[in-house]
Amino acid sequence: MLDLRPILQVTGILLIILALFMAPPMVADMAAGHRDWQVFLVAGAVTLFIGVSLVLMNRAPGFGELTGRQAFLLTTTVWVVMSAFAALPLAFSELQLSAADAVFEAMSGITTTGSTVIVGLDAAPPGILLWRAILQWLGGIGIIVMGVAILPILRVGGMQLVRAESSDLSEKILPRAAQIASAIGLIYLALTLVCAILYWYAGMVPFDAAAHAMTTIATGGFSTKDASIGGFGSAAIEWIAVVFMVIGSLPFVLYIQAVGGQLRPLLRDTQVRWFVGFAVVIALTIALWLIVTASAPPPEALRHAAFNIVSTISTTGYASTDYGLWGTFPVAVLFFLMCVGGCTGSTSGGIKIFRFTVLHAVASNQIARLIRPHGMFVPTFNRRPLPDTAAVAVMAFVFMFALSFSLLAMALSALGLDYLTAMSGALTALANVGPGLGEIIGPAGNFSTLPDSAKWLLAAAMLLGRLELFTVLILLTPAFWRG
Amino acid sequence: MLDLRPILQVTGILLIILALFMAPPMVADMAAGHRDWQVFLVAGAVTLFIGVSLVLMNRAPGFGELTGRQAFLLTTTVWVVMSAFAALPLAFSELQLSAADAVFEAMSGITTTGSTVIVGLDAAPPGILLWRAILQWLGGIGIIVMGVAILPILRVGGMQLVRAESSDLSEKILPRAAQIASAIGLIYLALTLVCAILYWYAGMVPFDAAAHAMTTIATGGFSTKDASIGGFGSAAIEWIAVVFMVIGSLPFVLYIQAVGGQLRPLLRDTQVRWFVGFAVVIALTIALWLIVTASAPPPEALRHAAFNIVSTISTTGYASTDYGLWGTFPVAVLFFLMCVGGCTGSTSGGIKIFRFTVLHAVASNQIARLIRPHGMFVPTFNRRPLPDTAAVAVMAFVFMFALSFSLLAMALSALGLDYLTAMSGALTALANVGPGLGEIIGPAGNFSTLPDSAKWLLAAAMLLGRLELFTVLILLTPAFWRG
Repeated sequence: MLDLRPILQVTGILLIILALFMAPPMVADMAAGHRDWQVFLVAGAVTLFIGVSLVLMNRAPGFGELTGRQAFLLTTTVWVVMSAFAALPLAFSELQLSAADAVFEAMSGITTTGSTVIVGLDAAPPGILLWRAILQWLGGIGIIVMGVAILPILRVGGMQLVRAESSDLSEKILPRAAQIASAIGLIYLALTLVCAILYWYAGMVPFDAAAHAMTTIATGGFSTKDASIGGFGSAAIEWIAVVFMVIGSLPFVLYIQAVGGQLRPLLRDTQVRWFVGFAVVIALTIALWLIVTASAPPPEALRHAAFNIVSTISTTGYASTDYGLWGTFPVAVLFFLMCVGGCTGSTSGGIKIFRFTVLHAVASNQIARLIRPHGMFVPTFNRRPLPDTAAVAVMAFVFMFALSFSLLAMALSALGLDYLTAMSGALTALANVGPGLGEIIGPAGNFSTLPDSAKWLLAAAMLLGRLELFTVLILLTPAFWRG
Repeated sequence: MLDLRPILQVTGILLIILALFMAPPMVADMAAGHRDWQVFLVAGAVTLFIGVSLVLMNRAPGFGELTGRQAFLLTTTVWVVMSAFAALPLAFSELQLSAADAVFEAMSGITTTGSTVIVGLDAAPPGILLWRAILQWLGGIGIIVMGVAILPILRVGGMQLVRAESSDLSEKILPRAAQIASAIGLIYLALTLVCAILYWYAGMVPFDAAAHAMTTIATGGFSTKDASIGGFGSAAIEWIAVVFMVIGSLPFVLYIQAVGGQLRPLLRDTQVRWFVGFAVVIALTIALWLIVTASAPPPEALRHAAFNIVSTISTTGYASTDYGLWGTFPVAVLFFLMCVGGCTGSTSGGIKIFRFTVLHAVASNQIARLIRPHGMFVPTFNRRPLPDTAAVAVMAFVFMFALSFSLLAMALSALGLDYLTAMSGALTALANVGPGLGEIIGPAGNFSTLPDSAKWLLAAAMLLGRLELFTVLILLTPAFWRG
């Protein structure tokens, strides 16, 4: 039998942290004289009580010595439980979201997706706006820690390729996670502060600056306005967002080295080079398209192209304009861009750049082998040989992503969603981007009008995508539970 | 340097065969008193002259000893040259197709795709209708021979897994191809005759029966009517088509054994079981959808679901009705079904079922490994262990398919095609299905209104898909030409 105590204990600790983070929104609503502060007080108290109870009732002797199976179960449990409790303030606030809406919004927050069902953000109470930003910010640091400390050890989807250092299951998972979390947490906090100050300097009021800084660095995409970042109408703000969305998409472990003066690993990293190079090429292409087909002034074209392309590829999901109106080509490009994603060990989602570099290495290698059947060719990743087992793991992930996407798109279309909405909705949820394409869930719309069943499906897809598919899927196999 | 002589010689031989097959359409037009018989006479004479010249000028000493590089170049050359000459009668007939249209139609024929740019098939001269059917019939046997005798030896896309018997590059490729071609050719011819007789018996006139039998067994999909098979309005004809489309999608080598009395290999083959099982499950699902949402009578629902699902998954591309009107769910299902395809060594296209069974084996294996990191698990294919190199080759193919699809869809959308047309057009061409989805290129439309540039792109995609991607892509690498 699985010993559930360490799982419940860690869940309890994280619930306590979640409860403490309900204080700032409470204070914000108090300051604004809005009665929703009571909602945060009650939700916080309930969450704290459950969290403390779980910790007290499940004191396991060998804290920190998780087995692989426990680590898998822990990961999914934590994300589901956090979403459920994070949904409480949303459900009981003056917005009175239904259960489906509240869980959708909370899951979209904690997974840093950024899809929203709330209409009228500009008029929403500050507590709720701050709470949504905090959820993404916590989800962002959560996924970095998971991506750096847990998934590589579990070898999910070929992530053994991007381990910070050698390690195996015999290491204590939790102390290692705590140690990395504290180092990266400081950098994460510092970057958020710098981003907030720049946003403020560029014209946002401090509240908006703080909220957007949190959702930018988390590549989350929740905004305090229905019109998203575009609502500020400021080129400076958009360019700041571009820079910090990119920063949020790079491997945070490399920042630890960069802070120590070693910039070389950051600049030479394969993922970083591919990600930045790819974003630049696509943004320039789309800018050129806008200049040629829409006669847009070049600085405007570059600004909107860079912003919306980086927002999509980093899986942030802000919009600066309704790019659904840019024509057939940009819509198709943005659709495929949704699944790309940033680097591992970052806050971004999607398939992730390192898997594309692996796929590229494998495909090139195949071609070389076809030309010279008796030659010796070894594919490489980050200048090291790429073992076949890792390549297979990466490709199995991509296949599972494609399969999940197609099943989800078919399920959504069975619920009556049109082709573009079903296709882009499935992809945006799985890749944790945020908005979809088309009139309903595109950058100018939102997810509020979808049927509840579609919202539950999409929330599940966000979780599946955020946890790299296998972490969740493994729990659905009988073999996992046979012990 | 590559010795081009054997390549030109084989191309010449095949051109001679192509020229001889221009005789039946000539006779048909003569019999109908249509002056287009002169077009076939002239085109046949030109093709014959070039073919004979190529053979005479390129008599290579060691006939049959192709190197791998020669075999790659030969494969693509043959398909391109055949399409070019096959386009001649189309361009000079009374239909007066443009160069883009004629090549598109010829390529669609020879690759057994089935997309058409011709409007008014019902009134077209019999010669042209017969020529289109003959092109698909020749393309069908061509791809079987290639899939059985050439691609496995070249190890394209993991096809070494489905070799009929052990063989390597030291074997003489061409004699082997000729030997397999003659055995399978007889079965192919016999099946075509049986299918034609059944069609005739079910109510088609002999001409239609012959033309449709050729495009059914080739899983091609060209019809003699704008309304496709649906134009006959006969349930019997549609069920005959279902059976023979399935027959055309199974590995033809197994029929050789079946004719010899050994039915067991056919019935126990993993590809066959997956393909038939998959088609049955999807057809029943869609039939149920039609019964529930459209209150269709069950026999009608089953007939239309079975016909159009099998037509799509076998990459035939006939239509019995405008399934674009069935609602959001069937459209999404049909979209994803397009890429599935039949078995290797059959006439069908797409990714092919054996690659899905490999992906499934690899993904299951990944999950088993994640649960028990220290356990020993070996994925299997057709009850034999699946080597990592083969798995990697299969997955590289699927990745390249996805990449080609996305680049093509983006290119088509840049030419102004809407999202559904661009997406389904890219997929239907790459997978050699035939019709796309949506009003323009869907089952009730055709490709005639697309811009010429889109037609060239789609014709290239048909070739790319038909030759299993790598066979063509390899020619675009500098390494191939460095010798």
